[in-house]
Amino acid sequence: MSVERFFTRIVESLPPTIPFVAPEALERQRGRALQLRIGANESNFGLSPMAREAMVQAVDQTHWYNDPEGFELRQALAVGLDVDMSAVGLGAGIDEILGLMVRLFVEPGEAVVTSLGAYPTFNYHVEGHGGVLHKVAYREDREDLDALLALAQKVQPKLVYVANPDNPMGTWQNADALQNFIEALPSTSVLLLDEAYVDFASKEALLPLAPDGARVVRLRTFSKAHGMAGARIGYAVADKGIIAALDKIRNHFGVNRVAQAGALASLADRAFVLSVVKQVEEGKREYATLARKLGIEMIPSATNFVALDIGSSERARALLQALLARDVFVRMPGVAPLDRCIRLTVGPAAERKVFAQILREVLPQVG
Amino acid sequence: MSVERFFTRIVESLPPTIPFVAPEALERQRGRALQLRIGANESNFGLSPMAREAMVQAVDQTHWYNDPEGFELRQALAVGLDVDMSAVGLGAGIDEILGLMVRLFVEPGEAVVTSLGAYPTFNYHVEGHGGVLHKVAYREDREDLDALLALAQKVQPKLVYVANPDNPMGTWQNADALQNFIEALPSTSVLLLDEAYVDFASKEALLPLAPDGARVVRLRTFSKAHGMAGARIGYAVADKGIIAALDKIRNHFGVNRVAQAGALASLADRAFVLSVVKQVEEGKREYATLARKLGIEMIPSATNFVALDIGSSERARALLQALLARDVFVRMPGVAPLDRCIRLTVGPAAERKVFAQILREVLPQVG
Repeated sequence: MSVERFFTRIVESLPPTIPFVAPEALERQRGRALQLRIGANESNFGLSPMAREAMVQAVDQTHWYNDPEGFELRQALAVGLDVDMSAVGLGAGIDEILGLMVRLFVEPGEAVVTSLGAYPTFNYHVEGHGGVLHKVAYREDREDLDALLALAQKVQPKLVYVANPDNPMGTWQNADALQNFIEALPSTSVLLLDEAYVDFASKEALLPLAPDGARVVRLRTFSKAHGMAGARIGYAVADKGIIAALDKIRNHFGVNRVAQAGALASLADRAFVLSVVKQVEEGKREYATLARKLGIEMIPSATNFVALDIGSSERARALLQALLARDVFVRMPGVAPLDRCIRLTVGPAAERKVFAQILREVLPQVG
Repeated sequence: MSVERFFTRIVESLPPTIPFVAPEALERQRGRALQLRIGANESNFGLSPMAREAMVQAVDQTHWYNDPEGFELRQALAVGLDVDMSAVGLGAGIDEILGLMVRLFVEPGEAVVTSLGAYPTFNYHVEGHGGVLHKVAYREDREDLDALLALAQKVQPKLVYVANPDNPMGTWQNADALQNFIEALPSTSVLLLDEAYVDFASKEALLPLAPDGARVVRLRTFSKAHGMAGARIGYAVADKGIIAALDKIRNHFGVNRVAQAGALASLADRAFVLSVVKQVEEGKREYATLARKLGIEMIPSATNFVALDIGSSERARALLQALLARDVFVRMPGVAPLDRCIRLTVGPAAERKVFAQILREVLPQVG
């Protein structure tokens, strides 16, 4: 039989890119397990014991489909955030919601604004739906709100992406500056505010949840402070019209049962998250001291990771490779000038001790 | 601040439809738990003990992201199916893969062919991407391959959807007839062959996995015989060019860690699946006897559910409501003439006994 198969024009135009090489892929390539997995901002503090218990119980109900409405979890989130439940939508991680947001708003050929070096999975989804990315360079290792605004006013994008706190640099915007930015955006632009690391942020970086969220979609996750990256669960807080529109296109049964149960239990265990945040704070202080001793600059961070300034892209890449040779997985930003840094997740004290020792040993190798 | 938010034209055109009302929603509406949950073809035989153990272990690694390549599971599937690993792609259930397949192939306005009354979630995704559905009526409670072929030749669709065995009727196509159908499809049409229930199918219904899969995408799941509906994991077996194209648009981290671990373990526990299939066979025989005694026709089934012919849409709906009043959740097909039936999942012997008793009691209420 003859077959002439045609993908859509958008699909045909896409390169065979993969946003991230996973640590599992590194292990397969090297034929050796990693000793420290601190490159993907996974929380090695693990799960809340309450979440663990709820997830194990949910395993025994896995033969049943999950609740497609995520009712109990959305209700609990809404109470905690003091918003209506209709303003909360679930997804299989922020990644899935980013894709759905692009699909809601961006026609092929329409403009989207983000920062050069910001979250690549967002770019992946924009390109995957035929949107046109316009990018602004970071300024002093922070997303440059003034330049983002100027570009937005020029290209009138459907979506603007900002992460606060930022990934991959760990920096943050003060709430006042962000509020001014939002109010000055073109009237037809929606801000996707990626708050994956919000649990680790200081008060100054916390934008209040506006009663009028019409212009802002906040994206949050259980992957970081809650230690549930592999469960795939995140949520959007937005105007109910946007959440209702999600229901027209989303994969309704996409958020699995174990994840919903775990997230609900973890949300109730505030003490656990606070303990993780406290330990991360300790760890960041520890790494700041270490960096000072080693003559490395550490970028101030409002997240569960730190960026260490190694001086140049070449040196950062060499250090990353030297660490990998010691079975330590870290990542580095993808573009200049951010790529003079390596980015490492801040984990428990024992892990930090091992990393500090290895760093001391390998750093001389990169000059 | 003023906001003028614009969704895409496709999103604006979509109705606020939800493909399925979940049993959890019924419980919330009624303020009362269900006694028998046999409406969504969930396997109340539960999980393989090996899968359960693997999933519990995976819960303790939930702070780590899942392998985006699903390497181990895809490798095991490929070995079991005797295909190359590059021909196997994972997704968060067949539902997610159906949406991705539409996105790969269907431009807005392009034609898609399916059967009237077939899987509504497929239609949801086609409409969600702006495709145009063309539908063929069932014939004698089976998808009508001749009519599907005639329509495909007329409208030259990008995609044709066939479920074998069928849902919601449980009927099946012989492999020969399906092979002839495939070979006669227009050269630019790809067949999405939904094999969610393939584990329950007889040998005649099993299409061999063709070495040249260029025209056929087979969709399979761990939701049914493997008892993992709530885990959200399914897979596509297709030409490697199609699987590679999926990598350009899919949510790479979408298949959670617990699901991958459970599926891998369940795949290795062939005895468990065979035991489920055997018990379902017993259950179908039991229900056939019950139906005969009650003067109801039961449609022959190659799945884990049976459709009982209640005579009319009105009677079927009345029976469904009468069962719900007794806390029994079943579903019925959405369109005539299929909607003269109720559809119920075949579960363990104890559950069947309870259902049989309740059915005997409520059937007189519907005349």
